Amino acid sequence: MYSAAAIIIGNEVLSGRVQDENLNYLATRLKTRGIRLLEARVIPDLREMIVETVNELRARHDYVFTTGGIGPTHDDITPESVAAAFGVPVSRNEEATRLLRSFYGDSLNESSLRMAMIPTGATLVGNPVSGVPGFKLENVYVLAGVPRIVRAMFESLESDLVGGRPVRSRTVTAFVQESVVADGLARIEQEHPGVEIGSYPFVRQQRFGCALVVRSTEPSLIDAASQAVADLVRQVGGEPEVRDGE
Amino acid sequence: MYSAAAIIIGNEVLSGRVQDENLNYLATRLKTRGIRLLEARVIPDLREMIVETVNELRARHDYVFTTGGIGPTHDDITPESVAAAFGVPVSRNEEATRLLRSFYGDSLNESSLRMAMIPTGATLVGNPVSGVPGFKLENVYVLAGVPRIVRAMFESLESDLVGGRPVRSRTVTAFVQESVVADGLARIEQEHPGVEIGSYPFVRQQRFGCALVVRSTEPSLIDAASQAVADLVRQVGGEPEVRDGE
Repeated sequence: MYSAAAIIIGNEVLSGRVQDENLNYLATRLKTRGIRLLEARVIPDLREMIVETVNELRARHDYVFTTGGIGPTHDDITPESVAAAFGVPVSRNEEATRLLRSFYGDSLNESSLRMAMIPTGATLVGNPVSGVPGFKLENVYVLAGVPRIVRAMFESLESDLVGGRPVRSRTVTAFVQESVVADGLARIEQEHPGVEIGSYPFVRQQRFGCALVVRSTEPSLIDAASQAVADLVRQVGGEPEVRDGE
Repeated sequence: MYSAAAIIIGNEVLSGRVQDENLNYLATRLKTRGIRLLEARVIPDLREMIVETVNELRARHDYVFTTGGIGPTHDDITPESVAAAFGVPVSRNEEATRLLRSFYGDSLNESSLRMAMIPTGATLVGNPVSGVPGFKLENVYVLAGVPRIVRAMFESLESDLVGGRPVRSRTVTAFVQESVVADGLARIEQEHPGVEIGSYPFVRQQRFGCALVVRSTEPSLIDAASQAVADLVRQVGGEPEVRDGE
């Protein structure tokens, strides 16, 4: 299994100013490439926290993606912090300078040129939206914070990612209470090695129900297990609705 | 400063099935009580990860809030994992049993009674929505995953939280590029100890702008620093819009 971690860097997420969207995007896209997002951290713009978190997670996972903190202002400290995590200096990247020059034109100033200061040895990740590049250092991808730019950057890098077989899923939804199917679900998961079953309760039209998600890399296992889940729902008097996906 | 960490527990967030809303809610509510959310982790329903994460964060912060994994199914392993983190057993809680009995009535079964298995020594957190209680063990609050229930649980516990002076904020918004004000912002932050300034770029109507957020626990410092930021925006030809909040 190929695994990834996301590091969402930004005081504005922890202060409640913005609702992060990048984690959900990365999770969804990585899944289609056969890479499982196994953990995510949301941390402030603090150099020591960035260094510590990058070093812990890059050792544990095949891929690490950071978002946020690559702009021109004093609170944008991700590139120098990632460089410190790898023990390399930052230096002016020629290609980044060229990209910034073509984007900013005459308004290019010293602050904008800070965005060309990239860890030595990193390769750039293109940004068709606002010129400012992200970069990749070993297994760590450093992306922007603005969701539209994150999506554009990810699209420009995803063909480089090596993954395994994608996890597929099928969802059985019914108006039955979780507790009524709990024992049966545990048994079905045990009887189907290679399958993971998640149960997500909901309330709709004043009625309790749950979405039972069967996940596996193996389509035939999904067929068998989701069939068993649908049978279980019928046994307790429910009417299962089955659809592909989560 | 009082600090908190959030632990979002759930495969469904890491698989991209759902967009987490609880982190943003907790961040916003804690801020009003003078408690700063300093980090958050999103982790799967895996016992060892829950144990490790709870123990790391409860030692670092005044408060830890977990969401998710307290239901009746096999993938709901938060209570027993938190108990393991504290080195205590789970045992049937009488009050929780009573709450579940009044909620489920005749349909109460062994699976529902699993939800009354609470770490020994924990106190309950009420859940007016669906009966299933959360709990508190030392500085760790264990809440549900469904956002509506998280909000109800938080409202029932928040009067117990002890915080400091709340961080207040004022936002100066203008159609100026970040790089043009970057040097000035860094200088203003240096000249106003006790103030933190965040810069958040945006694109609206095809024009680049930024929201400059001044944060401090001290209203007079916010007045002085936000005035300086507005002056800076005017100096570079922008028209600042100033409002309270982020």
